Amino acid sequence: MIKTLGYVADHPGDQLHLFSFERDEPRETEIVLDVLYCGVCHSDIHQVKNEWGNTVYPCVPGHEVVGRVSRIGEAVTRVRVGDVVGVGCMIDSCRTCEACEQGEENYCQGPNSWLATYNGPMIPKAKARTGENMYGRDNTYGGYSSTLVVSQDFVIKIPPRLPYAAAAPLLCAGVTTYSPLKHWGVTAGHVVGVVGMGGLGHLAVKLAKAMGAEVTVFTTHAEKTDAALDIGATRVVLESDQAAFEALAGQIDFILSTVPQKHDLNPYILLLKRDKTVVAVGALEPMAPLNNMQIAFNCKSTAGSLIGSIAETEEVLTFCADHEITPNIHLIDINGVNAAFKDVERGDVRFRYVIKMDWMDAMGG
Amino acid sequence: MIKTLGYVADHPGDQLHLFSFERDEPRETEIVLDVLYCGVCHSDIHQVKNEWGNTVYPCVPGHEVVGRVSRIGEAVTRVRVGDVVGVGCMIDSCRTCEACEQGEENYCQGPNSWLATYNGPMIPKAKARTGENMYGRDNTYGGYSSTLVVSQDFVIKIPPRLPYAAAAPLLCAGVTTYSPLKHWGVTAGHVVGVVGMGGLGHLAVKLAKAMGAEVTVFTTHAEKTDAALDIGATRVVLESDQAAFEALAGQIDFILSTVPQKHDLNPYILLLKRDKTVVAVGALEPMAPLNNMQIAFNCKSTAGSLIGSIAETEEVLTFCADHEITPNIHLIDINGVNAAFKDVERGDVRFRYVIKMDWMDAMGG
Repeated sequence: MIKTLGYVADHPGDQLHLFSFERDEPRETEIVLDVLYCGVCHSDIHQVKNEWGNTVYPCVPGHEVVGRVSRIGEAVTRVRVGDVVGVGCMIDSCRTCEACEQGEENYCQGPNSWLATYNGPMIPKAKARTGENMYGRDNTYGGYSSTLVVSQDFVIKIPPRLPYAAAAPLLCAGVTTYSPLKHWGVTAGHVVGVVGMGGLGHLAVKLAKAMGAEVTVFTTHAEKTDAALDIGATRVVLESDQAAFEALAGQIDFILSTVPQKHDLNPYILLLKRDKTVVAVGALEPMAPLNNMQIAFNCKSTAGSLIGSIAETEEVLTFCADHEITPNIHLIDINGVNAAFKDVERGDVRFRYVIKMDWMDAMGG
Repeated sequence: MIKTLGYVADHPGDQLHLFSFERDEPRETEIVLDVLYCGVCHSDIHQVKNEWGNTVYPCVPGHEVVGRVSRIGEAVTRVRVGDVVGVGCMIDSCRTCEACEQGEENYCQGPNSWLATYNGPMIPKAKARTGENMYGRDNTYGGYSSTLVVSQDFVIKIPPRLPYAAAAPLLCAGVTTYSPLKHWGVTAGHVVGVVGMGGLGHLAVKLAKAMGAEVTVFTTHAEKTDAALDIGATRVVLESDQAAFEALAGQIDFILSTVPQKHDLNPYILLLKRDKTVVAVGALEPMAPLNNMQIAFNCKSTAGSLIGSIAETEEVLTFCADHEITPNIHLIDINGVNAAFKDVERGDVRFRYVIKMDWMDAMGG
């Protein structure tokens, strides 16, 4: 067993606090990481507070993990001790379903779907149609911790030109925005809308711009206007600005909504060109009702998208290295994470907190 | 002016009744039809009762019109006097926008969008951003009438092998279901779901089956099961049958919902395979809220689609002639239309009423 320190919530109202636990020894195709950095994702907050109703406590969040390989199982061939690698939202999948065979592990259709880096399999045993638990555990502990044990197939090598800390947010926020931009064919000359200017939104702006698109940002935060223009947006529209919405009606090729809770997509549907799509990636919950009149009248679509595959995660890291894209991050200590959660909930961060792991500090703090 | 008899509603609670009015003389590219048949579409009821809030009274409905050309303007080249032709939901469009230039008049982006066969332009002058009325009229009178005047570019020749009466429902119900089946790539081997077993739904079953798909019908009407199987469905699922829904989870390639009012698409989203779409064509109004958790977890989409283009209307008539598909119709007299409306609202018709025009009867009735 591997002695590990983490930051944990024991119940929905809990503050994260220090936690000592043991991880299983690596199986022969697994590796052990010493965690160096871990991004703070809004879904960490949803999960800690049980806002999706599926949290398994104790909950150690964290799925934007960069770490150094400290040990490897006997059959590991893809990484070596000393390598710095990334781990995103998944640490395993069924590997036999059609989605897995097609390299889309993030849509794994196995009895428990993929194994999340924290909070256990996406379909827990109790909800699996077969009543199976192929992973043997209903809870997993994430990257707000000193070590992680993960299958070699679910780690991503960090390209040499990417700073380690800046790579962390790409492992969830990056691939979650890259995957739909690519899937819906965003390309040079497109007009792209990005709704929400947080960790995901600001990366969506940078990625879409690097793909050659002209980007319009929609936000409720007027004070983020300059920052959005600085990172490449052509235009920033406040969600209250009716005149701007009217002027943009029917002008946009693709809209990515990164808003992390229930919201109304109807105003955005009006901005799409004919036969185009708005995709929501942040709000994993019931949304405001859609008016099918607006949708049908121009053959429009709404869709959802969930993180991205391992191949896409590798792609987005390479894409960012090639285009010199890094997220705008603020480094914090693990004992600053409760304050960081409050800032994220208020939307008051530009644009991603990344925890720099230092457990001596944590134990003293 | 052309003296015309029609059936009209003067206000939302009105019964349709006889109405004498005059149509404009045909312009040089327009033709005059003597109406032979007109299908009864659920949207005729929505419109007569002002259920979409946009009805212009007096309202003479009818947009599944088959008629014989009685006169032609000087510049008409596409039809001759004596031809039997069809007219669907549109009698004109702007002809200059991108959609029109690409042959998708049903998504016309002109200041008033397309000119509807009844109830005037889709975007009336008062709502047009430019304040224009390019068609010069805010109301039009449909095919529940003795004559129709229409641009030669918006009539469809009826293929010789199609019975005239059976051709009528193809002009709206037919193309409204054909267009999305084609747009979303339904093909041999696909599993297609059709929600609602009325005028649209039963044609969707026949069309999808002729495209080589296996069709599952979802209905609230257990008594329609045999009829649905008769016309080619492989399976009929009652909307209350939870076990059947569970068994079909993740099995369907494309779902077309023809339900003509607000309904809940969430149970159908669960039936889609990864990265597939449910399209609603009947309910032009706010729908039940969608749970984006279900949508994002398998990269699914919901979309809308509005009737079809003139080219697609020609296609569906040819497709039906080639595959020997005809709608299941009941012929009625125009003075039976109020009773027919009640049956359609209850879903008690298998599957389309078609009015056989005989104005001597109507005046005596």
